[in-house]
Amino acid sequence: MEKRIAALSEFGKDANGRGYRVAYTKGDIAARTYFMDLMRKAGLEVNIDNAGNIIGKRKGENPLLKPIAFGSHLDMVPDGGNYDGDVGSVGALELVEILNENKIITKHPLELIIFSNEEGGTDGSAAMAGKLSEEALKLKSQSGLTVGEGIKAIGGNPDQIKDAARAKGELTAFVELHIEQGGLLEKEKLQIGVVEGIVGIEHWEVSVEGFANHAGTTPMNMRSDALLAAAKFIVAVNEEVTKIPGRQVGTVGKISAMPGAFNVIPGKVNLGLELRDLDHEKIWQLFKTIEQRANTIATASGTHFTFTYQNNPAKPALTSKSIQEKIVAAAKKSGLTYQFMQSGAGHDAQEMAMIAPVGMIFVPSVGGISHSPKEFTKGEDMANGANVLLKTILAIDQE
Amino acid sequence: MEKRIAALSEFGKDANGRGYRVAYTKGDIAARTYFMDLMRKAGLEVNIDNAGNIIGKRKGENPLLKPIAFGSHLDMVPDGGNYDGDVGSVGALELVEILNENKIITKHPLELIIFSNEEGGTDGSAAMAGKLSEEALKLKSQSGLTVGEGIKAIGGNPDQIKDAARAKGELTAFVELHIEQGGLLEKEKLQIGVVEGIVGIEHWEVSVEGFANHAGTTPMNMRSDALLAAAKFIVAVNEEVTKIPGRQVGTVGKISAMPGAFNVIPGKVNLGLELRDLDHEKIWQLFKTIEQRANTIATASGTHFTFTYQNNPAKPALTSKSIQEKIVAAAKKSGLTYQFMQSGAGHDAQEMAMIAPVGMIFVPSVGGISHSPKEFTKGEDMANGANVLLKTILAIDQE
Repeated sequence: MEKRIAALSEFGKDANGRGYRVAYTKGDIAARTYFMDLMRKAGLEVNIDNAGNIIGKRKGENPLLKPIAFGSHLDMVPDGGNYDGDVGSVGALELVEILNENKIITKHPLELIIFSNEEGGTDGSAAMAGKLSEEALKLKSQSGLTVGEGIKAIGGNPDQIKDAARAKGELTAFVELHIEQGGLLEKEKLQIGVVEGIVGIEHWEVSVEGFANHAGTTPMNMRSDALLAAAKFIVAVNEEVTKIPGRQVGTVGKISAMPGAFNVIPGKVNLGLELRDLDHEKIWQLFKTIEQRANTIATASGTHFTFTYQNNPAKPALTSKSIQEKIVAAAKKSGLTYQFMQSGAGHDAQEMAMIAPVGMIFVPSVGGISHSPKEFTKGEDMANGANVLLKTILAIDQE
Repeated sequence: MEKRIAALSEFGKDANGRGYRVAYTKGDIAARTYFMDLMRKAGLEVNIDNAGNIIGKRKGENPLLKPIAFGSHLDMVPDGGNYDGDVGSVGALELVEILNENKIITKHPLELIIFSNEEGGTDGSAAMAGKLSEEALKLKSQSGLTVGEGIKAIGGNPDQIKDAARAKGELTAFVELHIEQGGLLEKEKLQIGVVEGIVGIEHWEVSVEGFANHAGTTPMNMRSDALLAAAKFIVAVNEEVTKIPGRQVGTVGKISAMPGAFNVIPGKVNLGLELRDLDHEKIWQLFKTIEQRANTIATASGTHFTFTYQNNPAKPALTSKSIQEKIVAAAKKSGLTYQFMQSGAGHDAQEMAMIAPVGMIFVPSVGGISHSPKEFTKGEDMANGANVLLKTILAIDQE
């Protein structure tokens, strides 16, 4: 696996030699071409669907059974790492090669799927789940092309995007191997993460209005300082998120203060609030307590808070209990340590959960670092993950 | 006075009709020309010094006595108001006119001074105090011209800037009438502010370094969130500034967080810290307690704070006790209410304090608003201020 990860890392570099295999760019196309070649060599019947997803089919004993699918993605964020997506893609390919070597024909047909433009918003898997809209095709992607133009550039057909959709129940299962992108497995010295679900994400633009004034002539007790109120809010968000049990996370990741000078009391602050949890209800309960804290701060400071809900939520996606059990059994059989966990990041499996039972296997990220050239997963951990993926697919096949 | 304030407000407008009498621009030059004409009509001998300051001389009975000076400035911040500078300039002119009407010849020679580019950094008065450097002449001013080019544009001679300097002790006194630019007089329903001094100002660029990470996959207890640490710092600054007695002010007026996205924990935050007080020592004691608070926050949050002192301090400038007493006596004589106060904003009197005993008279700003088109001071309050200025100058003359 390490060799193939290294080979993939050669595709897509920016002018400074940093990884730049952004979806729809030359590097992305070159990596896809390389990978399709390997898929064909592994005996798969390879096609590109209308959304630009690569689908490699392997026949099963019983053509009437619904296919078992597995795979990941090959595209990368700018200046990203070589393991996010690649580990699951290479692991899926080697699964097929091992079946070939051992002359195993599964009962179910198999599909190895490489989704297009995962990093840009899980566009390929969204299209497969039937929810990539006409508007989304018009949006500019990181590559400079619109999503529609990008799909065309990688061999899809955006004009017939609806044909990329698969019906609910058409697949027996979809299982994805992926790096954790967090530091929990490493911290606990565990080898396999059994993903219970992919968290939901909600965003609010928060605006704090005070009154801009001269920082020299306005006494402390006559100020309506929007930045001071915003600072109290950021602290309050952290307090509310951490004071209840659970794995929910809350982040204020961006802020701007106006007019923004040493000597002017800020009259307005804009900031971004993000909440994530596996439980949609819990996110909204948390938001209500945060909103109450904001009201208290506003009253005390003579400021005003406005929350603008960003209507691009990612709903939580739970994985199949049955597949979770098979992942656990596979880990145990291989003598690997494991824990149940949630995925804090979005994945193609999240979209696929709308049309099929899904499973997700995590392997450790060194230092919990991701979306960075420092992203790293040890060869042994990748192999463990691929091994668990294989055993899980075979267990699904046996059922 | 209201008529002349209105007349001055016509000089210098931007394309949207907003006030734009920025130093060295067409509007500034037109207002200066208009005002010099009025000064000459009032019998003053008008010259422009090498720094572009307008100086109008009126002979006294005893040419051997050192002149008593008074005045203010005519330039304006972009989109500024019509009272900052203008009230003191018009008040000074009407003082001369009243002396003329009453055929009063003072013992001391008098000088009405209109300083150049007050808003850009009290450049004219700094030059008169002998501290406008060669480097400062090369700096770009708000007008687009360098300070040197600007001085030339208004009739000065930047190549001989040193000749604009007045020796320490060359003037008997300098007294400035100005709007308060804060809301204290209005709040206390008082008519005259007797300025005890102009606060010192110190600036620090503060950088907070944490570790940027994925907002979904990084649990709350594994974060080094630079923005959360910065928020705690902003709250701590406010606590430290307000928990000791006194009129000191502390402001965080600008902030930026990197990379600055909903879904990334900020790895770095830059912000600006400003402290002002009449007591230089107190500013630095306060800074030390703030620095300690930052260290505590850093240790608890796994972040690092760096303070970069901005070497453009304004040292506190105390006004003359003797002139303060004369202002009080003048207010009492006119039946006006008054209070002692500090100036939180910088003024030309601050520079003049380096070479002469200075006094400053404040009149109320409605709503405490300044540097805004909403800036307003009532006609009656302006007249009261000019009246106190006149009586103060006459009292100094009698001494």
